[in-house]
Amino acid sequence: MALSGESLRRFEDLRRENSSCINLNPIQRGGILSPAARRALGEWGDGYSVCDFCEGCLSDIKKPPIDVFVKEALPEFLEIDVVRVTNGAREGKYLVMHSLCEKGDTVLVDGNAHYSTFVAAERAGLKVESVPNSGGPEFKVDADWYAERIDVVKPKLVVLTYPDGSYGNVPDAARVGRICRDKGVPFLINGAYSVGRMPVSAKKLYADFVVASGHKSMAACGPVGLLGAGKEYAEKVFRRSEKYKKKELELLGCSARGLPLITLMASFPLVVERVKRWDLEVGNARYFSSELEKIGGIRQLGEKPHNHDLMSFESEVFFKISERHKKSRFFLYSELKDRGIVGLKPGITKNFKVSTYGLSGEELRKVVDAFAEIAKL
Amino acid sequence: MALSGESLRRFEDLRRENSSCINLNPIQRGGILSPAARRALGEWGDGYSVCDFCEGCLSDIKKPPIDVFVKEALPEFLEIDVVRVTNGAREGKYLVMHSLCEKGDTVLVDGNAHYSTFVAAERAGLKVESVPNSGGPEFKVDADWYAERIDVVKPKLVVLTYPDGSYGNVPDAARVGRICRDKGVPFLINGAYSVGRMPVSAKKLYADFVVASGHKSMAACGPVGLLGAGKEYAEKVFRRSEKYKKKELELLGCSARGLPLITLMASFPLVVERVKRWDLEVGNARYFSSELEKIGGIRQLGEKPHNHDLMSFESEVFFKISERHKKSRFFLYSELKDRGIVGLKPGITKNFKVSTYGLSGEELRKVVDAFAEIAKL
Repeated sequence: MALSGESLRRFEDLRRENSSCINLNPIQRGGILSPAARRALGEWGDGYSVCDFCEGCLSDIKKPPIDVFVKEALPEFLEIDVVRVTNGAREGKYLVMHSLCEKGDTVLVDGNAHYSTFVAAERAGLKVESVPNSGGPEFKVDADWYAERIDVVKPKLVVLTYPDGSYGNVPDAARVGRICRDKGVPFLINGAYSVGRMPVSAKKLYADFVVASGHKSMAACGPVGLLGAGKEYAEKVFRRSEKYKKKELELLGCSARGLPLITLMASFPLVVERVKRWDLEVGNARYFSSELEKIGGIRQLGEKPHNHDLMSFESEVFFKISERHKKSRFFLYSELKDRGIVGLKPGITKNFKVSTYGLSGEELRKVVDAFAEIAKL
Repeated sequence: MALSGESLRRFEDLRRENSSCINLNPIQRGGILSPAARRALGEWGDGYSVCDFCEGCLSDIKKPPIDVFVKEALPEFLEIDVVRVTNGAREGKYLVMHSLCEKGDTVLVDGNAHYSTFVAAERAGLKVESVPNSGGPEFKVDADWYAERIDVVKPKLVVLTYPDGSYGNVPDAARVGRICRDKGVPFLINGAYSVGRMPVSAKKLYADFVVASGHKSMAACGPVGLLGAGKEYAEKVFRRSEKYKKKELELLGCSARGLPLITLMASFPLVVERVKRWDLEVGNARYFSSELEKIGGIRQLGEKPHNHDLMSFESEVFFKISERHKKSRFFLYSELKDRGIVGLKPGITKNFKVSTYGLSGEELRKVVDAFAEIAKL
């Protein structure tokens, strides 16, 4: 394309379509900025804004107080020894795999693992073995299966998705953690959908590593995440460069050097408070699930009663409507959008995934009513 | 620390000290947001905002028009076959090293290479050999030395810092590129301080790879960068996962998933225009250098006449003042700050590094006058 006038202008005034709608996409609900984070955008927008007073290491910066945040607040929050800011949960998983494993080693993951776990392992040249889930309708991962699988596949690392992004199942991570500790295998919790939404304590879950996602669950701009490590492993994963002693090698010196980190910090006080209200969120999710099932022809998959705001539904009723609706399989997306609701994939009718995280009572009711109305078409 | 009231409140209202000052720090001047990028902050601040219409691959997203930006605009801008967005220049260097090299291989870098080049190579398990610079006062990298060094160290990759971040020297990259092409060694240009400031054509420089930094030189929030690759190598470095065919492995599926990418896009029209005015920036830098040298006791290091806005100075005059000033070695920082100028490292007097990028005539004059005044103390 010619880099001139008209063809360039399209990049200048970008609008986010549907920004006034209720967005049910599970990857969006936990990343909505707090008012404090939103206020910080203008002041910290410029490039390397956080680096004005850097003396060579991001997590040592005192103005803004990144050092206190990273070295005091976050370890306390996750109940783990050492925390570093990363560019996201997947970057944290790759970092741990690349540090702990050699090419050809095996990692053991749960049957509901996120694609980025597989991709991180593949990038690190590792084999991936799974602990299967129970199959439909609950697709649960049974903690007790880990013991046998560890004995068989001899993994260098065990990864548990807590909860997973397909069904929102919250597995018994403490049980898996105890098994891993007994067997002497390091244990990583992928908390992309938990840290920042619900209480997560590495100590209580016997986790050697926790990865978190700022943009998914901590009310921050993407991309930013956390990697927490127990003291037995922290020195290895956060080892420093031979040549540049201040630079943590696996972070390439520094990671989230800019606005995403500022929004993560600014939202943190709100995040600390909101995880304490997790039972209300679980209550909302259960209410939503039961109301949707009352419609008829809709079934919630995954754990029941459900323990997380991320839910997957089978919806025979919408599939049937799509067969006679003039908009065919796009009718559900279209009808929801007409009612100010987005976040389901366009074209999907048989199955859909939503999150109710952070919805007010009024919004919840509006969404339930919308599904009920559309089911009558 | 206790995660409660007072101790948390410090994160909520973060202020960027000195935000009204002229900031001469070379890592800051090219990352100041454009008005268009600043306007986009609020609308695209939330977490995974760019992913509303994602179908599995960041660079295929049509709303916002990431696909056109990544697949048409950026390749045209860099004159290279394939471009992907990364989390920064260093992440791009690591990606290429990790894709092209095996542990124990050698990369050949210039004597002025950035620390992140060494750290990326160390993370990838590679040996680093250098083409030395000429030593003071110019510290130039002679392109012709590459031929011999390539024959001796047999590198799997050659990296050239264009320009470097210590002296702002702009080496003869096209000459190095031709040598690499003749010898059949892939050639990577680290354009963190050039792409977005000055015209950079991979084609004209015979570069197989170009890395760029959005936060350093393209008026974007950190962290975001570019990696451009010639078609001979693009398939290798951007190879897809075996298991997840839409996911580019070395990008772990996707990279800059959020606001930094939006600001990069929104600023792009301005960036395209500003690189055309590069000769004015070089003129400003030369003016600044000559005015500072007129003060006496100050000498510009690096190439002369200078070809970039990043400049390093030796300043005997300020060191002498520091020996008798009551603020000792902190006087220079303090005196500049009193005059609304920041960006030099606190405590430095013998040597300092600045960038004049984007300064108006009035600002340039103000900075020159400040140094002249302070030299008379």
